[in-house]
Amino acid sequence: MIPVLAVVGVGLIGGSFAAALRRAGRVGRVLGVGRRPQTLARARELGLIDEAATPAEAARQADFLLLAAPVNSLGAILAELAPALREDAVVTDAGSTKQDVVAAARAALGARIGQFVPGHPIAGSDATGPESADAGLYRGRNVILTPLAENGEARVLRVAQAWQACGAQVREMPAGQHDAVFASVSHLPHWLSALYVAQVAASPDAALRLQLAGTGFRDFTRIAAGSPEVWRDIFLSNRTALQAELAELRAVMERAERALADGDGDALQALLEAACRARRDWSASCPPDGRPGDRA
Amino acid sequence: MIPVLAVVGVGLIGGSFAAALRRAGRVGRVLGVGRRPQTLARARELGLIDEAATPAEAARQADFLLLAAPVNSLGAILAELAPALREDAVVTDAGSTKQDVVAAARAALGARIGQFVPGHPIAGSDATGPESADAGLYRGRNVILTPLAENGEARVLRVAQAWQACGAQVREMPAGQHDAVFASVSHLPHWLSALYVAQVAASPDAALRLQLAGTGFRDFTRIAAGSPEVWRDIFLSNRTALQAELAELRAVMERAERALADGDGDALQALLEAACRARRDWSASCPPDGRPGDRA
Repeated sequence: MIPVLAVVGVGLIGGSFAAALRRAGRVGRVLGVGRRPQTLARARELGLIDEAATPAEAARQADFLLLAAPVNSLGAILAELAPALREDAVVTDAGSTKQDVVAAARAALGARIGQFVPGHPIAGSDATGPESADAGLYRGRNVILTPLAENGEARVLRVAQAWQACGAQVREMPAGQHDAVFASVSHLPHWLSALYVAQVAASPDAALRLQLAGTGFRDFTRIAAGSPEVWRDIFLSNRTALQAELAELRAVMERAERALADGDGDALQALLEAACRARRDWSASCPPDGRPGDRA
Repeated sequence: MIPVLAVVGVGLIGGSFAAALRRAGRVGRVLGVGRRPQTLARARELGLIDEAATPAEAARQADFLLLAAPVNSLGAILAELAPALREDAVVTDAGSTKQDVVAAARAALGARIGQFVPGHPIAGSDATGPESADAGLYRGRNVILTPLAENGEARVLRVAQAWQACGAQVREMPAGQHDAVFASVSHLPHWLSALYVAQVAASPDAALRLQLAGTGFRDFTRIAAGSPEVWRDIFLSNRTALQAELAELRAVMERAERALADGDGDALQALLEAACRARRDWSASCPPDGRPGDRA
């Protein structure tokens, strides 16, 4: 049970966390913190939060704080919270990168870094804002925690239990491993999808192309509609790991382009078969409710 | 009304065409032609075809022939059909590339090239085989015809009306324009999705990566599960147009990678905003039943 929860950033991620805990009966009062008063007012109307609060008010009152704001703002938010933060409070975040968030948290919290348990829920959509909040968003999803040596088991457990109450499965791994894995399975797809759409949109016959685009285009580019600010920050935050994946991909692409230029059907087919097999195996390994596998 | 329809390749594309025409009451008998007897037997069990036929039998009997086989096999199929082809028969295809199919058809049919009206239905999924056939597959979808000077209006009209009876919208354009547009909106996404999955699958920690992949990965990689043979042939058939698109994309990627390396957030955001705007506009322009736009 969390007597007072504070959510900084009451959009899809933060709003869904509050809604899930409320539905599970695991939270008393919910405070919402954010830059835009109209967003907080809407979150209150929707019943996601009980009231809006300043960072200082939230720090003084909350037992548990979730930071669901863009990754490059987390250091400044923690610095605002730090002076008034209750000693028994635990703070976690929902940032898509972890090494840079940990560095920012260390700078902001100093000796109180043990109160910050870094986290990353693997859930989302291209929807944004409090209207998109969904108490079921985390059901069956993975949440990664990258605990610090200073955290202590009890604090990590409190964060893990909150996510479990939302229906999520919690895993722990080092921050560096987290960042490498998500550069590969999340950031690189977004990079490719967005740059591809930018290229199509800049072509002289873009209107005709887009008129004739079908379901393959639709699925491949869905993530390109995500927030430009959020993704700019993720790419910059996780630059080193993303660059490493891009280099690996470039090697595969050069091999394939050579096969294409040479008319080497066998080499092309070997690459396509490896991809097809891996993707079909991945679908087959997914739970029957279709998460994270294919929709029916 | 088509008294005798022959479908060469009774899988998703050919089977759905037969099923749609039958449901519309626009076809008498349906012959199925294919390499695998068990596929034809299954198509007959499912009611997609009335009987299996050899290419020569189909040529002698059919008023209308749809070739729904891999693009690089169409020349050989047409050569087999040619000697027995009825003079009043019209032949069309469902190949994803058109310039190479036209060249193969000219070589196979010679003076009878006017009987061949090149076509491409913009519909599909990663499902294959007669079980995946769906009488509603073409409803609301685009079908592109790239008529030849030799076709004559009446033959083009017969093919257009058959697709319209399946619920599709028919458009005409030159084969070269068709190939450039689909290199961009279909072949390049498949190329990127498949090579990306091949790269992930070849990584030393592929199992962990795939365990943590979420909904973005799922949608971005759905098309990578498509048939390796079919896509190998499409890439080779449309090589020149695909290489041109790859060169354009490479220029955008290099610009983005420079911005990433320089920490140039403004340049990155400009690219991401162009992509986000184009993708959101595209979704908004789609018909309410969600085709070809986003699923609900």
